[in-house]
Amino acid sequence: MKHLFSCALGSRLSRVISVASVNEILEDQGSWMGKILWVCDEHTRMYVPEGTDCVVLPSGEGAKRWDSIETILGKAAASGLGRDGKIIAVGGGVVCDLGAFAASIFMRGCAVSLVPTTLLAMVDASLGGKTGFDLFGMKNLVGTFHPAHEVYILAQSLRTLDDAEYRNGLGEVLKHAILSEDDRLATYLEENRGKLLSRDIVSMERMIVDSLKVKQSYVESDPTETKGIRDALNLGHTFAHALESVGNLTRFSHGEAVAWGVVKALHAGVSSHVTPVPFATRHEELIRSYGFDVDVTVSDRGRFFEALRHDKKKRASQVRFVLMEGQGRHLLQPLTQQQVMAVLGFSGVE
Amino acid sequence: MKHLFSCALGSRLSRVISVASVNEILEDQGSWMGKILWVCDEHTRMYVPEGTDCVVLPSGEGAKRWDSIETILGKAAASGLGRDGKIIAVGGGVVCDLGAFAASIFMRGCAVSLVPTTLLAMVDASLGGKTGFDLFGMKNLVGTFHPAHEVYILAQSLRTLDDAEYRNGLGEVLKHAILSEDDRLATYLEENRGKLLSRDIVSMERMIVDSLKVKQSYVESDPTETKGIRDALNLGHTFAHALESVGNLTRFSHGEAVAWGVVKALHAGVSSHVTPVPFATRHEELIRSYGFDVDVTVSDRGRFFEALRHDKKKRASQVRFVLMEGQGRHLLQPLTQQQVMAVLGFSGVE
Repeated sequence: MKHLFSCALGSRLSRVISVASVNEILEDQGSWMGKILWVCDEHTRMYVPEGTDCVVLPSGEGAKRWDSIETILGKAAASGLGRDGKIIAVGGGVVCDLGAFAASIFMRGCAVSLVPTTLLAMVDASLGGKTGFDLFGMKNLVGTFHPAHEVYILAQSLRTLDDAEYRNGLGEVLKHAILSEDDRLATYLEENRGKLLSRDIVSMERMIVDSLKVKQSYVESDPTETKGIRDALNLGHTFAHALESVGNLTRFSHGEAVAWGVVKALHAGVSSHVTPVPFATRHEELIRSYGFDVDVTVSDRGRFFEALRHDKKKRASQVRFVLMEGQGRHLLQPLTQQQVMAVLGFSGVE
Repeated sequence: MKHLFSCALGSRLSRVISVASVNEILEDQGSWMGKILWVCDEHTRMYVPEGTDCVVLPSGEGAKRWDSIETILGKAAASGLGRDGKIIAVGGGVVCDLGAFAASIFMRGCAVSLVPTTLLAMVDASLGGKTGFDLFGMKNLVGTFHPAHEVYILAQSLRTLDDAEYRNGLGEVLKHAILSEDDRLATYLEENRGKLLSRDIVSMERMIVDSLKVKQSYVESDPTETKGIRDALNLGHTFAHALESVGNLTRFSHGEAVAWGVVKALHAGVSSHVTPVPFATRHEELIRSYGFDVDVTVSDRGRFFEALRHDKKKRASQVRFVLMEGQGRHLLQPLTQQQVMAVLGFSGVE
């Protein structure tokens, strides 16, 4: 067990801890006074210690709905959790988001620890306090800010992840390489592609910690996304969420959609004379080198623009896109429908 | 329109404003940039201005469930609210709790204003940021802390309230008279019973503001109920919630249950040598003088104790009761089953 760093989110300090096994988590939780409920899905129940109170959710994005929350809340009540209780969520982004959301509303908030078991959840969902689920087909329409007490990084769990799911997480890592205040993460990704793609544990841990520290620098300055700083993490996401909506939330993985969206945002930045061409080119090439298809075309323009209009980052009824002025420097800017169409490779006529 | 005071809850300042009509609310909201959704129930829709986006919920405690939240969230999404949107809830405690809870989870939190139209909601639900709904028959099992931007006191709305509902709010006012740092509110209630029961507007406004200021002093020092200060407001509520559970949440009004619970807590305090007898006697007499039946007997002991065991104020698996050492001085203390039985007038044999 190794304490990596702590992330301050409002009044909550999230401890980020590297562990070699679930036993180390049990050891670390030994001093917790209240009751504990574990939450996992069908794929991650193997990580949950025997003899503990546990909720097993169905696997997949489809589970990200109120029913799952109600199941967790019911089990928490039945297990006698009080407001001094804790939920430990073990799984990918869906399980982490659901477990943390349930914790945020159970008796007006109990504690939560996260044990992300996918690369995407390790570098994204686990840190920063965002929780939520989907409603009316809209991603994370419902949610809260409820930072975890502990985030346990169990890098071992990445060894058995399938390739598509691993690449899913690399999409967010590549985004963090753009947002980092320096280009060390980008260079590391350029120079260690072989080791990272063959899942060398030491290389992966280095990548995860560097990626999380980029995220930390944004979320600490803006815990509830009200200052326009944290919005930078949304780079590529406005495009990505709309693409995911067109694909009914299932056709594209989040990481694939984000990698695609990041490239679209770089293009939009170049065409708006905000992003320097060499910067955009370097990162587009890096993203392509990790095997992402950034040439996907949007099949249903109508639904795509409808989804854009419902983007939850809207302020004063205007959707603002994250554009990059260069390494670690972003701005928020609306784009006209014509600009978006051009970036998507559509002609002006609908 | 008159700004009465502001209440600081964490980083949020709740402005408490006295208004003579809904037009004054519209005027005050004139500068709000985002979209607004009104939430009311069948009884309070008459207060909602025409031509505004509005959700009408069913009336009554039965509406305090997830379905209502989903209805609000659906209408908010359809009305194009963003995170800069605002929900204005007009109604009793149920509507205020639901509207504020929906606001707290819509896109991870949008703004909320409250227009309580019952005395109970004015002196209790509206200030302090508590939101929630019932699940699995447990009151407010689900909820958040999400203080309102504005609380509008429309004292006129109390003129048409039925007597039972008005007395419902008096239960909380009588509790605040005990918790106040001095006995001015108690004396005011003793000396102005006639005017208050005939709903003289000036007297009611004085009572509401004094009562809210008592609540303010507790919630400001402990916005999320983690310091044991705010727990004082729970005086009588552990008993009351259990009584309400036995009555299936419908037989007893909240204020009746609270008045009964406060007297039980005073008795428990006396029998534990915590509460001075003259203090307990003065307040029991005051409560009786307002027509509360504090002699209700619990019909189903089993369910009553089961409900006590699930009290959400539990810490380290122990239910703690609020006992009064005197005017405005409380302590939190567990009671044995025998002590509770004695206060309820049961013999030791079940």
